[in-house]
Amino acid sequence: MYEEILPQIITTNDTKLLLLVLDGLGGTTNQDGVTELEAANTPNMDALARAGSCGLHLPVGYGITPGSGPGHLGLFGYNPIKYQTGRGILEAFGVGMHVNPGDLAVRGNFATLKDGLIVDRRAGRIPTELCRKLVAKLREHIKQIEDVTVDIEAGKDYRFAVVFRGPDLSDKLSDADPQIVGKPPKPAEPLAPEAEKAARIVNKFIQMATEVLADEHPANTVLLRGYATLPDIPKYEEKYKLRALGIASYPMYRGLAKLVGMDTPPVGETIDDEIALLREKWNDYDFFFVHIKKSDSYGEDGNFEGKVKIIEEVDAKLPQILDLKPDIIVITGDHATPSVLKAHSWHPVPLLMKGRYTFADDAQKFSERECAKGILGHIPAEAIIMLMLAAAVRLLKFGA
Amino acid sequence: MYEEILPQIITTNDTKLLLLVLDGLGGTTNQDGVTELEAANTPNMDALARAGSCGLHLPVGYGITPGSGPGHLGLFGYNPIKYQTGRGILEAFGVGMHVNPGDLAVRGNFATLKDGLIVDRRAGRIPTELCRKLVAKLREHIKQIEDVTVDIEAGKDYRFAVVFRGPDLSDKLSDADPQIVGKPPKPAEPLAPEAEKAARIVNKFIQMATEVLADEHPANTVLLRGYATLPDIPKYEEKYKLRALGIASYPMYRGLAKLVGMDTPPVGETIDDEIALLREKWNDYDFFFVHIKKSDSYGEDGNFEGKVKIIEEVDAKLPQILDLKPDIIVITGDHATPSVLKAHSWHPVPLLMKGRYTFADDAQKFSERECAKGILGHIPAEAIIMLMLAAAVRLLKFGA
Repeated sequence: MYEEILPQIITTNDTKLLLLVLDGLGGTTNQDGVTELEAANTPNMDALARAGSCGLHLPVGYGITPGSGPGHLGLFGYNPIKYQTGRGILEAFGVGMHVNPGDLAVRGNFATLKDGLIVDRRAGRIPTELCRKLVAKLREHIKQIEDVTVDIEAGKDYRFAVVFRGPDLSDKLSDADPQIVGKPPKPAEPLAPEAEKAARIVNKFIQMATEVLADEHPANTVLLRGYATLPDIPKYEEKYKLRALGIASYPMYRGLAKLVGMDTPPVGETIDDEIALLREKWNDYDFFFVHIKKSDSYGEDGNFEGKVKIIEEVDAKLPQILDLKPDIIVITGDHATPSVLKAHSWHPVPLLMKGRYTFADDAQKFSERECAKGILGHIPAEAIIMLMLAAAVRLLKFGA
Repeated sequence: MYEEILPQIITTNDTKLLLLVLDGLGGTTNQDGVTELEAANTPNMDALARAGSCGLHLPVGYGITPGSGPGHLGLFGYNPIKYQTGRGILEAFGVGMHVNPGDLAVRGNFATLKDGLIVDRRAGRIPTELCRKLVAKLREHIKQIEDVTVDIEAGKDYRFAVVFRGPDLSDKLSDADPQIVGKPPKPAEPLAPEAEKAARIVNKFIQMATEVLADEHPANTVLLRGYATLPDIPKYEEKYKLRALGIASYPMYRGLAKLVGMDTPPVGETIDDEIALLREKWNDYDFFFVHIKKSDSYGEDGNFEGKVKIIEEVDAKLPQILDLKPDIIVITGDHATPSVLKAHSWHPVPLLMKGRYTFADDAQKFSERECAKGILGHIPAEAIIMLMLAAAVRLLKFGA
């Protein structure tokens, strides 16, 4: 946002900016006419809402339900339609792999080949444990193809991710997946001249994997799709002059944070682990992204009460975060995950912002309907980082 | 809107979407501080407002007063600045003519020619009945020019519309109208090389019409302007995967609906006729646009009470529409027509949306000031169809 003027107005100081993201925080009203955030008892967030500014943000666009990638890129200040992260990258992030500029990341399925035809695209949904064993076998036999090194990591069930690392790899390839059963394997085809090498490497990988798996059943071949290289995305240090730390238990969110230039040390699974890391690193960074996953997970399960409890748990621990005295704190979600929908959704997401110079508006608690009355109005997710920088007095006057 | 990502997220299901447009619904406050919608007694719309989501929409842009064309194209989900429908097309639609791709539609005036000069650009504002007679005479004598067939239809008073149908017709022509009296007739001139044929045809038409009308008085010649071919607009079936039905008593709105690919059967003049058609066709379509004209007409007449009564009439009949159980219903206007202005205006337009997954916000009735408190906020008209599709679960998640 405002890429053309940002370089002339961005400045630095010693303020601390904190972005606390409860994944899937937003909701829509249930049969009792309330959302999870409205039902939750959140005295600490409500006090911040009364003292600070509230609004609603639109993660990608009107009616658009964001995946985790677009949801976070928006929050991080990037236009999620302009900067798209392909499936392969998110799959690789999700299993904790690094993807560096130039790397080609791909989603893989184990599949079943019989008499020259793909008869099961998911190899009977083999269990994760078997997937790990097969991936170890592939890893042992396939380390390098031409000048390209090959990294493989098991995912859930029949899924895995591959990252090809070497020069001149393009993601402009057709899926090596017939999509329906009863068809022969489909090689990857280059969709542009610069993708010929990538197609050759990918197809060689499939051939080698099929040889390695020849005696296995039912997982005796692989399908590859969702090819993706990293988008060429300006990093936080360069774009915002911020040394940024990403704190997330789940590897996918660490991957997304790393994509924009945040440091992303590993951290334990609990909210306490995340807060401990935040406190430990407080003096070393300017900007802190803290990600809470489980609000989304409960929403996806349709577990209204579970989502309420996670929100309440975060609220109860909020004083530990506020003790650090961030100059500006934002609490929001990357999208809505209403438990009535059991899925991500397009609904606008509540947003709360408190700093020394934020307007104390009329919102009386942190909830969708109070946020609708807030001074911030409805804003695109991209705008949040701009408002944080402004509230931290890190943006100079534009024009004389 | 979001044209680059829509094809990857649009999907289908068996939901029914209903867009009820009260033309010119929006208002501004009168001397008593209320709008027509605020003054109207609308228990059914108010109940929907309480149960659903409210907001305000901006038809074209801040401060922009839309004509009927841009007002509806915005509601239909098209950027009304990008997709402009020329005057000739709206004139032809207004008199119930079909305009097909490649056709050149033109507005005509009967005028008075004396001693080689245009002495009255409206031929003494001849009555509609005479206009019809003269158009019948022109129609009889001018059926074809070169390989172009000519369709003529009378409008109100001295106005008529012509549609030229044939190959290679461009609308890049100057008006064949001197604009002020006391000047000689002005032929159409091509404004681009590809418009030479169209200029020749149009000028031939004027010459032939002037010959046919030689013995008439005062309508003894014609002026032609507002040349327009159809904009190349993606249709509903292709863009939104919706089988759409447009229900409108007035031909102009059927024309606009047809422009975006809706079926537009003829319908009687009353709201009851429109509802009867809606009920009859309910099983055959996914999307229904129902247009109520008279709210705008009364606004334009400065008849506050008349506009209030039409709104109340629609409200009283709303249960018949709700009985059909649309999965998502939107009630709004294409623009404001405040009776204090006696004209279309730029004011934001109240918007109400109710479906299974819409947020039950704090708006207590359907009115401008309650809509300003709604969860939807202020949105561009283009966003409405996106929110309808989302609420009908017809948009897939964007990105992983």
